[in-house]
Amino acid sequence: MSVTAPKGFAASGIACGIKASGAPDLALVASTAGAVPAAGVFTANLAAAAPVQVSRAHLAATAGRAAAVVLSSGNANAATGGPGVAGAQRMCALVGEGLGVGADEVLVCQTGLIGIPFPLAPVESGIPVLVEARLGDREAARRAATAIMTTDTVCKEVTVEGPGFTVGAMAKGAAMLAPNMATMLAVLTTDARCDPDMLAGALRRAVEGSFNRMSIDGCTSTNDTVLVLASGASGTSVGADALAETLGRACGDLAGMMVADAEGGSKVSHVVVTGAASDDEAHRAARKVAESALVKCSLNGEDPYWGRVVSELGSAGVAFDLDRVEVSYGGVVVCREGVAVDHDAVTVRDHMQGHAIELRCDLGLGSGTGAMLSTDLGHGYIDENRTTS
Amino acid sequence: MSVTAPKGFAASGIACGIKASGAPDLALVASTAGAVPAAGVFTANLAAAAPVQVSRAHLAATAGRAAAVVLSSGNANAATGGPGVAGAQRMCALVGEGLGVGADEVLVCQTGLIGIPFPLAPVESGIPVLVEARLGDREAARRAATAIMTTDTVCKEVTVEGPGFTVGAMAKGAAMLAPNMATMLAVLTTDARCDPDMLAGALRRAVEGSFNRMSIDGCTSTNDTVLVLASGASGTSVGADALAETLGRACGDLAGMMVADAEGGSKVSHVVVTGAASDDEAHRAARKVAESALVKCSLNGEDPYWGRVVSELGSAGVAFDLDRVEVSYGGVVVCREGVAVDHDAVTVRDHMQGHAIELRCDLGLGSGTGAMLSTDLGHGYIDENRTTS
Repeated sequence: MSVTAPKGFAASGIACGIKASGAPDLALVASTAGAVPAAGVFTANLAAAAPVQVSRAHLAATAGRAAAVVLSSGNANAATGGPGVAGAQRMCALVGEGLGVGADEVLVCQTGLIGIPFPLAPVESGIPVLVEARLGDREAARRAATAIMTTDTVCKEVTVEGPGFTVGAMAKGAAMLAPNMATMLAVLTTDARCDPDMLAGALRRAVEGSFNRMSIDGCTSTNDTVLVLASGASGTSVGADALAETLGRACGDLAGMMVADAEGGSKVSHVVVTGAASDDEAHRAARKVAESALVKCSLNGEDPYWGRVVSELGSAGVAFDLDRVEVSYGGVVVCREGVAVDHDAVTVRDHMQGHAIELRCDLGLGSGTGAMLSTDLGHGYIDENRTTS
Repeated sequence: MSVTAPKGFAASGIACGIKASGAPDLALVASTAGAVPAAGVFTANLAAAAPVQVSRAHLAATAGRAAAVVLSSGNANAATGGPGVAGAQRMCALVGEGLGVGADEVLVCQTGLIGIPFPLAPVESGIPVLVEARLGDREAARRAATAIMTTDTVCKEVTVEGPGFTVGAMAKGAAMLAPNMATMLAVLTTDARCDPDMLAGALRRAVEGSFNRMSIDGCTSTNDTVLVLASGASGTSVGADALAETLGRACGDLAGMMVADAEGGSKVSHVVVTGAASDDEAHRAARKVAESALVKCSLNGEDPYWGRVVSELGSAGVAFDLDRVEVSYGGVVVCREGVAVDHDAVTVRDHMQGHAIELRCDLGLGSGTGAMLSTDLGHGYIDENRTTS
C-alpha cells in the first residue's frame, strides 16, 4: 500500500512525456482532506534545484502544512535558472487548481539530469490527468512509486505500523545505478495526529538515523528531498519518540532498498565502528571507510585487504591508536592490536563472496559506535555514470 | 642525473629479494660528506608506517641532519607493530655501519602492501651490497629510482637548476595504478648551502604547491614521505624563496609525472577554480570537483556533464551562488550564470577526447584561485585495485 496505507491519502502516477522513453514520469501523493501538517528535509547542496527551492518556500509560507506532493522524473530541473523555478511553481499551481487548494499548499520534487531546461508542456497537459486519476488503493500507490523511478531497477515502497497509526512511504534512488541522476527522493505519509513542529523534529531524527547513514559515492545531490504529510486520520495523537521511531523504521527500510538496488554482481557493505572516543567520531570513521574508493574496490574484488581499512581509519580525523585496532570481516578477526593475526581464511573468503559484507572495526578507545551502509566499487558504477546518453 | 645531479651525492639500487618477482627493491641516496642538512614532510595518517615513525624520530634526534636515505619497495612495513619498527631501525643501522655514520643520521622510506610482516633477511644481506655499489653518476641515480617503483610504469626522475645550485629528485607513485600501494615517496637532493630550518620551511612550501595539489582518489597513505638532503657543495648560500621555488619546480614536475602515469586510455584532469571568496576556498572547491567519483566517471566517458560540476561546487562547503557560476571545458564555456549556454559542442568533444582535460570554474564571487591535478575514473583503476594478488 505504501503511501496510501495510512488513512487519508490518495496517489496517482502517469506518463506525461518528460521521459523520451514514454515511461511513467509524473506522480502525486495527496491528502484527501486538504492541507495537513507536513515537513521536509532537503539537500544541503547550495546548488539546490528549483523544486527544492520552491518546496522549502512553500513549507515556510504555510508554517508546515501541505495538501499534496507532485513529483516528476526524467529532468532534475537543477541549474535551470529563473525559468526552472517558474516551472516548479507552475506545477504546484496546477495541482492546487485541481485539488482546490493553494499553490503554496503543494510541494514538488524532481529528479533526473542536471542543467537541461525543464520542459513545461508535458506537465501542463499531464497534471490535470494526474489529479483526476488519484485513488486510495494499493495500485495507485504503486503507480506513483513507479513514476519516480529513474535508474532504479525495483520500485521502492514500505508500510510500517506504529502504536495506533501507520506510516507509508515510497522512494527513488538506486545504489550504483542512481548517482548520475539527482540522487534520492522519498515521500512518507502517516495517519498519526501531530503538529507540524513535532513532525519536523521526528522527520529530522528519522533521516539522521537512516538516509544520512548510507553513502554510495559521497556526492550530495542538488535534489535530495524527504517529505512527510500527516493526515491525523487514525485519531491517534502520538508522542514525539514513537513518531520518530516509526518514521525512522520506514526510512531505514527504504535506505536498505536503495543500497541493495545495485546492479548484478555488486555488493552491499555494512561498516560498523565501535570503541571510538564518541558516537560522532565512530560515525565519521565509519563514513571514511565506507566511502573509500580503495576499500570499495577491495570489496568488489572480494579481497579482505584490511590494511586499507586501518589506513582510512588513521586518516579519518578521529582519535586513533593503531596498536589498539581490531578489524573483522563477517565476524572473523583479521587484524588485532594493529597487526595481522592468524585467521580462518576460508570463512573470510566465503563471507566476501556473498552479497552483503560486514566490516567491523573496533578502535579500542571508548564506547562510541557508528555505522554506515555502502556498496562496492566495480565496473558497473563506471559504466552507468560515464555518459549521460 | 636526478638525485646525483647536485654535487655531493651518490646513489645505488639493487634487487635484494623483498619482491618475489626479483625486480629491484632496495635503493640508497647518500651524501658523500657525511651528515648534511635534511628535512622531511610525512603523511598525516595516524596509522603512519614504521619507516615514517623512524624517519621522523631520526630527524628530530639530529635536529635536521642526515647522511643518507635508504628505501625499499614491495612491502610497506605498515601495520606491522613493534617488529616493523625494529626492522626499519635495523635498516638505518646497517646503512650507518656501511657509511660510517650514526644510525639516526640515516632516514628510511618503504612502499608496498600494508599489514604484511616485513621480511628482514633480504635487507640484512642486501644493504652491505647496496652501500658498496653507490656511485655519483647518472646510471646509479636511475638504478635507485627504478628500485622504488611498485606499479609505476615509468621511472620518475627530474633535475632542476636554481640560481647557482641544482636540485635533483626521484619519486614513485603512479596515478590510477599506484594507489593500492602505499602511495608516494620522493627524495630530493640539492647542493645549495642552507641550514636545516630554512630547508624544512622551503620543503613544506614546495610540497604544499605540488604534491598537496594532486589527488587520485582522496586516500591518504600510511607511508607518504618527501625528503630532501642539502650538501652545500655548490658553495651557493641560497635565499629561502629561491630554495622553495626551485624545490617546488622539482616537486611540481614529479607530481605531473605521477598523475600522467595512468594506464592506457585514462586521462589527466586539471581543475582550476577562480572567482572564489579566497584562495583557500578555491582550493577546497577544486579538490571537491577533482576528487568527485561522478565527475571523474564523466571525464572517463568524455562527457562534459557540467551539472555534476556545479553540484560538487555547491556541496564543497565554500561560498557559492549558482547564478554567478561559469564552467568551461578546454576554454569553451558550457554553463554561464548557472545555466546551460549554447556552445561549440564539436570543440568540447575534441577536447574531452584528448588525454589532458582542462576544467575551469569561475565562482564569480571574489579573487580566490586554486587548482588540482587529478585523473578520470575508469575500469583500469578498479582492475588495479580490486585485489592485491
